[in-house]
Amino acid sequence: EKIEVDPPKPGEVRIKIISSGICGTDKHILEGKDKVPLPAILGHEGAGIVESIGEGVTSVKPGDKVLMFPVPECRECSSCLHPKGNFCLKEKVIPPTGLMLDGTSRFTCRGRKIYHLYGTSTFTEYTVVHEIAVGKIDDGAPMDRVCIISCGVPTGFGAVFNTARVTPGSTCVVFGLGGIGSAVVMACKASGASRIIGVDINEEKFPWARDLGVTDCLNPQKLEKPVQEVVVEMTGNGVDFAFEAIGLIDTMVGALESCHPSYGVCVIIGVAPSNSQLIFDPLLLLSGRILKGGAVGEYKTRDSIPKLVTDYMEKKINTDPLITHKFPFKSINKAFELFQAGHCIRCCIRE
Amino acid sequence: EKIEVDPPKPGEVRIKIISSGICGTDKHILEGKDKVPLPAILGHEGAGIVESIGEGVTSVKPGDKVLMFPVPECRECSSCLHPKGNFCLKEKVIPPTGLMLDGTSRFTCRGRKIYHLYGTSTFTEYTVVHEIAVGKIDDGAPMDRVCIISCGVPTGFGAVFNTARVTPGSTCVVFGLGGIGSAVVMACKASGASRIIGVDINEEKFPWARDLGVTDCLNPQKLEKPVQEVVVEMTGNGVDFAFEAIGLIDTMVGALESCHPSYGVCVIIGVAPSNSQLIFDPLLLLSGRILKGGAVGEYKTRDSIPKLVTDYMEKKINTDPLITHKFPFKSINKAFELFQAGHCIRCCIRE
Repeated sequence: EKIEVDPPKPGEVRIKIISSGICGTDKHILEGKDKVPLPAILGHEGAGIVESIGEGVTSVKPGDKVLMFPVPECRECSSCLHPKGNFCLKEKVIPPTGLMLDGTSRFTCRGRKIYHLYGTSTFTEYTVVHEIAVGKIDDGAPMDRVCIISCGVPTGFGAVFNTARVTPGSTCVVFGLGGIGSAVVMACKASGASRIIGVDINEEKFPWARDLGVTDCLNPQKLEKPVQEVVVEMTGNGVDFAFEAIGLIDTMVGALESCHPSYGVCVIIGVAPSNSQLIFDPLLLLSGRILKGGAVGEYKTRDSIPKLVTDYMEKKINTDPLITHKFPFKSINKAFELFQAGHCIRCCIRE
Repeated sequence: EKIEVDPPKPGEVRIKIISSGICGTDKHILEGKDKVPLPAILGHEGAGIVESIGEGVTSVKPGDKVLMFPVPECRECSSCLHPKGNFCLKEKVIPPTGLMLDGTSRFTCRGRKIYHLYGTSTFTEYTVVHEIAVGKIDDGAPMDRVCIISCGVPTGFGAVFNTARVTPGSTCVVFGLGGIGSAVVMACKASGASRIIGVDINEEKFPWARDLGVTDCLNPQKLEKPVQEVVVEMTGNGVDFAFEAIGLIDTMVGALESCHPSYGVCVIIGVAPSNSQLIFDPLLLLSGRILKGGAVGEYKTRDSIPKLVTDYMEKKINTDPLITHKFPFKSINKAFELFQAGHCIRCCIRE
């Protein structure tokens, strides 16, 4: 569809999108599992170039290469001011309004209002984003590679480095070996985990997972007992760290039950379908298990994520193996088909 | 009833009980909410004097003053060997077997087997406990005061000092102002919390709670909206630390929802009725909330709890205000009536 993108208002930035990753959350929205205001322009993992800025914008200027973040950083709210907080309260992210902070949209299509998604909307040639959700990155950054550093990479890395704080020699299990789960695996390996158990029903992902650091692959559909029981048996009493990177209630409980009863830490990364209920026996916690979540890996987005791009440029981290496919923007539907069929880790769209 | 208490077998200790606290869990068992093997001798918060020891026992000798712990410390299992673990796996605590490690009981009544409770059973003149659940304490310790340091005090203190790690200037909410909740309040105050909100439906407890450090008392039955909404409004966006010291699903979810969405930590201390299910929207965690539990305050019981008694003797901590009533052992039923009616914080039984 041809859409009109209004100029940026005060505090806003209009960005020419160069490249976008396709994330599981985009798929969940298409499938109707995550409820957001529709019709909307999807995509929330994007890299672009600033085209114009609204009044009062000072942190970026036209021509800057930028990433845009699904969680902003206003630097004024109680989350942003707290050393451990990253979930900025300036914008209502859960459930999303689909609108800019002034309550309006910048997108119209044949005269009809189109909603934004998570303050980003990257599956378009141009988008308008609040300055508080934009971070300037290195001029030399390859956009079709660093776009995934706006959401998927920090979500997976931060779950390991910030939320779980995986320790050397520890045992880990990762439920879901897609883009986020694979980033989790990379970070667990970088943290010195001695054993990384990968769980997925799609065995096509196992060779990629092993390349990234998974030591044991489990397909729950081929096991005779619940996967969490197998994980507990494999590790004696349960893993040190469990990660759920799918977004299903059953695997969230499975991850919690996979943890060591006394000191296991379970991190839920996947976004469950709207109005889901997590249900488990609270005695699972009484023995000492810890259950955590976190958006975008608990990174303060504007402060921290551009530094991850610098780390990438300086070859301190290599996120390229996460991108298995690239498509031109006009083939986005083909990319989604590939993603829905489970034939890729991360699939990126580019100009 | 008159019961027979067998001599201790290898690795066991027979103890003359001097004093016991009555804990909410004992009440839950009497009310049939917590399922344990019955008939049993209740009581799990006790101080006594070693009467005799079984073969191989080296850490205590007859005549020693001791506390006995509902969570043992074998110093061999994966929990005990881990720096953060305290939930010893040597004994099956959840659900309890009601038996010693060799699968038998030391109690009989008119020829019938009587079950143990949590490896302790303190509402008796003599009990038999595994050495791994016994800690020698100072010879001068006043038994009718330090008995609560075997379970209630470390449970409350440890929830604050070990599990939540309450920080100076922080805001806290405590659901339930009984013995455990009151210990939590004392520890929050000692940690420098700037605001401590106490929640209870029994206003009789409010004056005691204020004396211990509660700054705001809330009775959910007198509020026009859910107490968690009131707590969030009172604190801007939610508290830094929430504690559930009741053991009800509704108050567990209330405590979680009272937390700041990005960095709030919710610690569940209360033991829910058997086969309960904690039910909540996992999005509550996605923003960054942390949900934790812990038994006996995550203290390694034998290593740490005798030190708390020493701290008490050296007047570093004063747990006396938690004990509002004392009864002789023969009046235990009267003590339970008082407790069930909510007219006390901690009520202790003594010789």
